[in-house]
Amino acid sequence: MDPELIRRLSIPADTKVVLCVLDGLGGLPGPRSRTELEAADCLYMDRLAEEGMIGQTIPVGHGITPGSGPGHLGLFGYDPLEIEVGRGVLEATGIDFPLGANDLTARGNLCTVDAHGNITDRRAGRVATEITAEIAERLSGIELPGYEPLVREVREHRFVLVLRPLDGNAPLSAALSETDPQREGAPALVAEALAPEGAAAAGIVNEFAREARARIAERETANQVLLRGWSRLPDLPQLPELWKLRAAAIATYPMYRGLARLVGMDVLDAGDSIATQVATVREHWDDYDFFFVHYKPTDAAGEDGDFARKQQAIAAFDDCVPELLALEPNVMVVTGDHSTPALMASHSWHPVPALVWGDYVRPDDSHRFGERECARGGLGTIPAKELLPIAFAHAGRLTKFGA
Amino acid sequence: MDPELIRRLSIPADTKVVLCVLDGLGGLPGPRSRTELEAADCLYMDRLAEEGMIGQTIPVGHGITPGSGPGHLGLFGYDPLEIEVGRGVLEATGIDFPLGANDLTARGNLCTVDAHGNITDRRAGRVATEITAEIAERLSGIELPGYEPLVREVREHRFVLVLRPLDGNAPLSAALSETDPQREGAPALVAEALAPEGAAAAGIVNEFAREARARIAERETANQVLLRGWSRLPDLPQLPELWKLRAAAIATYPMYRGLARLVGMDVLDAGDSIATQVATVREHWDDYDFFFVHYKPTDAAGEDGDFARKQQAIAAFDDCVPELLALEPNVMVVTGDHSTPALMASHSWHPVPALVWGDYVRPDDSHRFGERECARGGLGTIPAKELLPIAFAHAGRLTKFGA
Repeated sequence: MDPELIRRLSIPADTKVVLCVLDGLGGLPGPRSRTELEAADCLYMDRLAEEGMIGQTIPVGHGITPGSGPGHLGLFGYDPLEIEVGRGVLEATGIDFPLGANDLTARGNLCTVDAHGNITDRRAGRVATEITAEIAERLSGIELPGYEPLVREVREHRFVLVLRPLDGNAPLSAALSETDPQREGAPALVAEALAPEGAAAAGIVNEFAREARARIAERETANQVLLRGWSRLPDLPQLPELWKLRAAAIATYPMYRGLARLVGMDVLDAGDSIATQVATVREHWDDYDFFFVHYKPTDAAGEDGDFARKQQAIAAFDDCVPELLALEPNVMVVTGDHSTPALMASHSWHPVPALVWGDYVRPDDSHRFGERECARGGLGTIPAKELLPIAFAHAGRLTKFGA
Repeated sequence: MDPELIRRLSIPADTKVVLCVLDGLGGLPGPRSRTELEAADCLYMDRLAEEGMIGQTIPVGHGITPGSGPGHLGLFGYDPLEIEVGRGVLEATGIDFPLGANDLTARGNLCTVDAHGNITDRRAGRVATEITAEIAERLSGIELPGYEPLVREVREHRFVLVLRPLDGNAPLSAALSETDPQREGAPALVAEALAPEGAAAAGIVNEFAREARARIAERETANQVLLRGWSRLPDLPQLPELWKLRAAAIATYPMYRGLARLVGMDVLDAGDSIATQVATVREHWDDYDFFFVHYKPTDAAGEDGDFARKQQAIAAFDDCVPELLALEPNVMVVTGDHSTPALMASHSWHPVPALVWGDYVRPDDSHRFGERECARGGLGTIPAKELLPIAFAHAGRLTKFGA
């Protein structure tokens, strides 16, 4: 739905909606020709399917395999083809870094260069995260005219660089080239403006890179930085404002907290398991109208190609469903951000099972929550971005269009 | 999918995709309430439906009956509403005429005029094709300043006119009016520019028409030409470049070879039957990644209103399926470009059965390839233009979108 239309039709209501995202939920048949979801023991979700309606979503477009960013933006009701979140921003959100609207971010690598400055290892031997953390702290001390560099370790050789304007200085544009030559045997590149507005950024970035090199040149490895994926926070209409509600994210992984923050949700302390996540939902039940619960184990098992573990992860989530239902949500949605079939050990383009349960849901003839039943469910095959408007409609949060 | 997105996400792969288009496949119930496809003996396609997934496509839009051009452009992954192929171009492709990017084409009719130049028969009594061929040869000899007229007979009174720039001359614009008054009792019209850039074309066309009239004025019938459907080749992003693959068309009818040529496919010698077509696919199996096999008898029987013959034509195609499967394609698609129900003896707007079989296909609960099963298949009801991206995704030819 178009944001302008949402803004026009959305109305406040005294209802609760819970969106449960089982990351990478969709699968492909394994043993006995059943998918992970079909094979999983899902007493409660099957009951939701029986009472509610099911269908399948297309996360981004037919045949398109989504990354986590586009997958979630779709579920949050945005068109993932219209909003691109740059790699620098994603990397920053992935470590829970509180990005500001004026921050320019890059994804950084520590690399190793020889005496002539030529790269001998683009990943600096995958240096230990602790060492990257020490280096990050040193690089955060660099002084630049008008901008503060904030450097944070991610994992191994990877770090995030954030360039934040000091008082009164204009934000830096992301219209500049990357300094990573993408090959060894060559030196790091000088950043160049890709448009006139990128000139200031290129100057600051090159000064940062020179100074960084000077500060770590004495090291044998991990003695140079490569910067890419320049990006700024996308200017997204915020979910609470669009829908006139209070929204909370309960996610154990930083990436998904970051994505929720991008659209304006409050991020709650989720603990480290679905049990603590459910407890958090319960604790804040009166404070919010919309709860986004992100469940990671399904995707992790799928990415590992572990059919049985993904099947078990789905069943483990199912065990928590009664506790969520006990809170008496008006509408509950269960779906995934994309498929991650264990058979492929990767994200895929396949449609994603989806379930909508609650007030005023028109039941279809479904009895089980599984790919095959979803493919012929009453919800049909719909773009993922339509799922949230459907859920909010059932929660009485969309008024009539036209007289 | 947007061409820019395809260009960005498509990757080369060592996989083979076969698209089988049974022209006019979709039907309506006849004897015993079964459609032509449901009634046909399709052991092999039923097995593909069982192992793969089925659904139905909307060729152009809901309720829209497509011609062959839009029907195929959709199957080739283009939006038929955005790309219109003019009648002159279609007529030229329909006779296998190798159009160049700078050629201006028209569809021509021979007509009969009286002593005053007024049209007495717009179709010149449907003069024999051989006579049109003789006249076409004479008209091709006309000399025009800077342009070469190429005139080719089509069938009966119909011909194609191509105006090709001689060295150094600018291509002629299609922004000019038609010379066919669309009624009898009136003279042929003078072509007029419909925009400033059409002035040169109007001048050349009127000179051609004057000279043509002079050359055939002595004839009692078929003694004047009428020209309409001015068009140039559409500027289409080419399929092999968009998808980074080698594409071949195997079609027995010139129209479909022409449509494949429009999107950049190589046109192979198909012989005159599905048996020779399959042999051609086999012979060139190593030379291409994508094979478009066009099967005409289904549409021809449908257009004739011959239910039994259409049913038999479907069964005859089915017999060749094992030979195609023996080549071990990674993905095979079977569908139509539109429906041609024998009951209507014409193209129709009905959705078209579609089947996708091969690597990583998520099976649905389908057991037979037929309209009713397709309407509830796992592929859903999708725009025809999405079918090729779905097929190429299954063949590993689309990389992930976003991080």
